[in-house]
Amino acid sequence: MLTAFVLIRCEVQRISEVAQAIAELPNVAEVYSVTGEDDIVAVLHIKAYEALDEVVPSGIAQIQGVTGTRTVLAFRRFARRDLEAGYDLGLA
Amino acid sequence: MLTAFVLIRCEVQRISEVAQAIAELPNVAEVYSVTGEDDIVAVLHIKAYEALDEVVPSGIAQIQGVTGTRTVLAFRRFARRDLEAGYDLGLA
Amino acid sequence: MLTAFVLIRCEVQRISEVAQAIAELPNVAEVYSVTGEDDIVAVLHIKAYEALDEVVPSGIAQIQGVTGTRTVLAFRRFARRDLEAGYDLGLA
Amino acid sequence: MLTAFVLIRCEVQRISEVAQAIAELPNVAEVYSVTGEDDIVAVLHIKAYEALDEVVPSGIAQIQGVTGTRTVLAFRRFARRDLEAGYDLGLA
Amino acid sequence: MLTAFVLIRCEVQRISEVAQAIAELPNVAEVYSVTGEDDIVAVLHIKAYEALDEVVPSGIAQIQGVTGTRTVLAFRRFARRDLEAGYDLGLA
Amino acid sequence: MLTAFVLIRCEVQRISEVAQAIAELPNVAEVYSVTGEDDIVAVLHIKAYEALDEVVPSGIAQIQGVTGTRTVLAFRRFARRDLEAGYDLGLA
Amino acid sequence: MLTAFVLIRCEVQRISEVAQAIAELPNVAEVYSVTGEDDIVAVLHIKAYEALDEVVPSGIAQIQGVTGTRTVLAFRRFARRDLEAGYDLGLA
Amino acid sequence: MLTAFVLIRCEVQRISEVAQAIAELPNVAEVYSVTGEDDIVAVLHIKAYEALDEVVPSGIAQIQGVTGTRTVLAFRRFARRDLEAGYDLGLA
Amino acid sequence: MLTAFVLIRCEVQRISEVAQAIAELPNVAEVYSVTGEDDIVAVLHIKAYEALDEVVPSGIAQIQGVTGTRTVLAFRRFARRDLEAGYDLGLA
Amino acid sequence: MLTAFVLIRCEVQRISEVAQAIAELPNVAEVYSVTGEDDIVAVLHIKAYEALDEVVPSGIAQIQGVTGTRTVLAFRRFARRDLEAGYDLGLA
Repeated sequence: MLTAFVLIRCEVQRISEVAQAIAELPNVAEVYSVTGEDDIVAVLHIKAYEALDEVVPSGIAQIQGVTGTRTVLAFRRFARRDLEAGYDLGLA
Repeated sequence: MLTAFVLIRCEVQRISEVAQAIAELPNVAEVYSVTGEDDIVAVLHIKAYEALDEVVPSGIAQIQGVTGTRTVLAFRRFARRDLEAGYDLGLA
Repeated sequence: MLTAFVLIRCEVQRISEVAQAIAELPNVAEVYSVTGEDDIVAVLHIKAYEALDEVVPSGIAQIQGVTGTRTVLAFRRFARRDLEAGYDLGLA
Repeated sequence: MLTAFVLIRCEVQRISEVAQAIAELPNVAEVYSVTGEDDIVAVLHIKAYEALDEVVPSGIAQIQGVTGTRTVLAFRRFARRDLEAGYDLGLA
Repeated sequence: MLTAFVLIRCEVQRISEVAQAIAELPNVAEVYSVTGEDDIVAVLHIKAYEALDEVVPSGIAQIQGVTGTRTVLAFRRFARRDLEAGYDLGLA
Repeated sequence: MLTAFVLIRCEVQRISEVAQAIAELPNVAEVYSVTGEDDIVAVLHIKAYEALDEVVPSGIAQIQGVTGTRTVLAFRRFARRDLEAGYDLGLA
Repeated sequence: MLTAFVLIRCEVQRISEVAQAIAELPNVAEVYSVTGEDDIVAVLHIKAYEALDEVVPSGIAQIQGVTGTRTVLAFRRFARRDLEAGYDLGLA
Repeated sequence: MLTAFVLIRCEVQRISEVAQAIAELPNVAEVYSVTGEDDIVAVLHIKAYEALDEVVPSGIAQIQGVTGTRTVLAFRRFARRDLEAGYDLGLA
Repeated sequence: MLTAFVLIRCEVQRISEVAQAIAELPNVAEVYSVTGEDDIVAVLHIKAYEALDEVVPSGIAQIQGVTGTRTVLAFRRFARRDLEAGYDLGLA
Repeated sequence: MLTAFVLIRCEVQRISEVAQAIAELPNVAEVYSVTGEDDIVAVLHIKAYEALDEVVPSGIAQIQGVTGTRTVLAFRRFARRDLEAGYDLGLA
């Protein structure tokens, strides 16, 4: 499993409507309106890297009101040692 | 439950060691080393807003090698309508 | 009590009108037009974190003329020691 | 009364110590450690513009660990019309 | 006397017209079109801080073609020691 | 006469000392410590463009504690029409 | 052979259409839609520097939907020593 | 096959030495010193997303003299239609 | 003689047309379309500082399609010592 | 002939010394200390693209005190039509 964070800017009056539309997309695990420079954060958990194109440029970026996206991918996930005695690859 | 994303910059040679130390802190749900301008993303799920001070300025920021943090908080979580027929407050 | 600062940009010809509209919103303690990169600063004192969504994305961001908002939250409030012999949690 | 917001950056490991030192300065009404690009926000209420030099470059900027300050001044304060039937000059 | 520098951006084809309109405003001591990121610098010498609101958000920002303003205020004026044996408060 | 604004950044603990040293340089008309991103603004009135090199890179930039300078030059000065029935060339 | 990377921003809804149009241009070796601040990266391998003008300002920049381009050129290519016992000039 | 561009900043006096060290790493297809804000661009072609962690934070970022990295991943590769009658997934 | 570099941004589809129009202006020595953040660089050699206003805000900035200009002036020109045994004032 | 502009940042106290060292390098046509964000501009006229590596990363970037360089290349030179009845390729 691959984890990605999509940081989204949109027209300021349409944040709720855009965030709701993103939540309906496949492969989108969590969507939040947020404080800070960006308006929305979407968390993706995808099985194959190839699915990313479908979610971001062909999915989120096509929603009316979106003005920009930046996608940040996890290299690796770090877990509490006592729980898991090691770490999984952020790709769990 | 309150969700927060902490975007962390650190000395580039110490990313793994810093990320592992963050993963050991209480209230830290997920930690990833990431592509992009920031080096590490930590996802927090906390019960009371008051706990945030303990995790970020008194926790993450005290780890050796950290050079900066920016904390982004969820205003609200948006969920798939068919699943949940409404939305929870990003504070679920 | 949670303290937040909302830094607002708006169309430069409409600063007064936008600032006045923000001042009418519930949970907004103080509103100022200001020098610097941002046009308006709103200070919020809210009882529950959940109210923030109502004030910022569903409130301030819906006002005509607003082009962007950034919300900065207090982790903790620091007080003069002689007065209070300690500190309260910025959440007083 | 003149209102000013001082946005302060400091060494990330010393935020609490710096914020506490700022809280001890005269004319400083409120001090918060905060989420976002800056580390600390100080709110000043001063009687005469002349006092600002004493608080910021000769006060806050002299504290060990401070690496930068930006001061934002209120042009005007906007108040709820029903309460005050008009507005005061942000200088109340 | 309080000294302020207002850094103004405007539509690039209208710099002269905007600068001339600023020069006609009360409390504006000097106006220049300039090299650099900003298009115009206005120097203000004002007697009372309260007048600043009238000059900047209610004055300069209302001129057609202005797209942004940043106001920088003097904390203190520094003078040649031999001339003045001390310094005045930038508020001379 | 040519007018130039030199925007100066310096070590935050040494603003007064640096500003005083700048005030002693020839061709420097006014020096202010200021609010905003830069720490000091120096206003120069010089007779010949050639003198600028002596004041900025060979003068201000050599002072201990200065970390950067940006020089903004006036293209033209705009004056109140009723006073002067025209304008002078910012080079008066 | 000269290698250049063209970093392209375009209207977010038209990324696929713009990227496909770039792929049809002569001298364009590879085109990718990408994560990050820019929307598209085009990799060029050109024989003579003179051809660059035809590809970038007269080619890519003329496509509908493109809002900006930045071109980064290779000074030199570095190769694995064991493979090639030296390096070629990034101009191979 | 997944394509990634790693944009690298390093100490300006050590560009050649750092670029050569990057070229020796496994999974690095091409390395160039470049004009522009970044000093070096590395092009990666990797078979499995999991290998990225080994190349970037555990590989490039550990080289002496590197001060920062940003990794940009291809969503999809676009190819000339006449050649390939369609497109491959940037993952060819 | 005074040397200035004018860095110009314009609508990306009109670079050639704007650059050609700049080349026709008096006092403009060289004009190039360029790689990088800016679209066009104009090199000016002017005899008197007063001429700058005519070339930049009253000349280049009035051309259709120009969206911004930044003017950078030479303090001083540095020349090869063996050729000239000294240096001229960048004002040659 | 290829034209390039190298924008150089250096330690602010060493501008003259660095600029003089750059002027001694082969292929450097002109060197100026300048107003603005960068400290020095070097103008290069080179015959073959391959020479650029020698001048910038292996030349200018090796000089003590240089902290960063950005190289901007001319796509094309635009000339006055009446003079030259056409244009040369910025590569004259």
